[in-house]
Amino acid sequence: MSNGNLVEQLFSGNFEFVDLGQPLNEDTLILNLPEPFKNTPGFSKEKISEYDEDGPAWAWNTFSCGEHVGSHFDAPIHWVTGKDGISVADIPANDLFGEAIVIDLAAECAENPDRLLEVDDILAFEKEHGKIPARSWVAMKTGWAQYAQDGEKFFNVGEDGMPHTPGPSVDAVIFLAEERDILGFCTETVGTDAGIAATFEPMFPCHNIMHGKGKYGLTQLNNLDKLPPRGAVIIASPLKITGGTGSPVRPLAIVPK
Amino acid sequence: MSNGNLVEQLFSGNFEFVDLGQPLNEDTLILNLPEPFKNTPGFSKEKISEYDEDGPAWAWNTFSCGEHVGSHFDAPIHWVTGKDGISVADIPANDLFGEAIVIDLAAECAENPDRLLEVDDILAFEKEHGKIPARSWVAMKTGWAQYAQDGEKFFNVGEDGMPHTPGPSVDAVIFLAEERDILGFCTETVGTDAGIAATFEPMFPCHNIMHGKGKYGLTQLNNLDKLPPRGAVIIASPLKITGGTGSPVRPLAIVPK
Repeated sequence: MSNGNLVEQLFSGNFEFVDLGQPLNEDTLILNLPEPFKNTPGFSKEKISEYDEDGPAWAWNTFSCGEHVGSHFDAPIHWVTGKDGISVADIPANDLFGEAIVIDLAAECAENPDRLLEVDDILAFEKEHGKIPARSWVAMKTGWAQYAQDGEKFFNVGEDGMPHTPGPSVDAVIFLAEERDILGFCTETVGTDAGIAATFEPMFPCHNIMHGKGKYGLTQLNNLDKLPPRGAVIIASPLKITGGTGSPVRPLAIVPK
Repeated sequence: MSNGNLVEQLFSGNFEFVDLGQPLNEDTLILNLPEPFKNTPGFSKEKISEYDEDGPAWAWNTFSCGEHVGSHFDAPIHWVTGKDGISVADIPANDLFGEAIVIDLAAECAENPDRLLEVDDILAFEKEHGKIPARSWVAMKTGWAQYAQDGEKFFNVGEDGMPHTPGPSVDAVIFLAEERDILGFCTETVGTDAGIAATFEPMFPCHNIMHGKGKYGLTQLNNLDKLPPRGAVIIASPLKITGGTGSPVRPLAIVPK
């Protein structure tokens, strides 16, 4: 579009606006780390007034929430490898917009919850859809959003006591960060790494490597099934928390019809 | 643009991406209601771990914040007139995108902090820039963003004990809500109403009338001076708080160069 007719074009009916966020409330599922690590509180809300003596004409609440609860944004300083990087508040506006690259492994993940996104999956995607551009959000479509309200299926803890949920392999993370220079990695699961990523070398590669390279993470997404493999734009605007390591977020997508 | 080349066009260099959010931290200025009304807490943050024994490889925090703190989004249920309306969680994705209509009264507000946006100001704007379209965000540019870190100037409490800050008149709110069917009203000040709007009939018209009509509010914005009078698009995505009356938000704008 020419720069003159952004509004005319965007609201022409040629585009659908999609909400990629999961509901944020007391039931929102959160990560649960093993001892001795400290865990995040979930979301809680408290009434200030509700058209009553504390505020006759208005209702409002105050809430508490971990920075990494529900659909949320991971900033580089979330991980020690990115500790000299930026917080959510310092992310430039340009980085809050990126093409959505959606790699669909939902069928495979239904068969095998430990299914990893591998470099071969990425190359197969590129063979069909073209090279993944720099500064894009790469999303692994796993179908996990359907379990967002069902802790047992969402975390899928096995007899080994470990969560069994999909995520990227170490090599895939290195490839996307170094060979494709993406903006960040998106998942439908509770975090950007696979459930068993504590056993990888390095541990939690999508945190360790991505954040070490100044890349971002976007988790617990909904409605990825409404996005095409390429051509949609994700807008993810975390709260501007000074020094924040992350933020709950309600990402949106602009999808060509 | 044709629906096929959204990405190519949006990232062509023809557009600038602007962050309209103010920093969110312990110093973020908040509304202070007189007795006997109950006030909102501000923002506070507490460390969970910071590359230490509680989380050797990661840093994260938990935070508390009122729904109407800092740059924030007002949903219809925030006001008693909109109590049968929707919460932030129920706002459709289409309503999170709208043209920015920026009416510049900064010079007048510098002269008179009680300056109201009047219907005549809107008609004068329309004479120059065309009729304000339905479903647009109408922003009153007051220059108040420059005071966002200076409580004395930001609230500008007079000897009468009342805040003296700009906002829309009752007639302007009725005109925008009923004659123009806008999405909502945007300000740089702490709320969508003028400081002295408690003395208006009805009180707080931008809350009373806008929310009663199912419209929204967007407050404490920054960088309105980077937007043209028309042609930019505001993307404001509040947290998807179930039953939330509002939410802190980091609005963004896409601005044609």
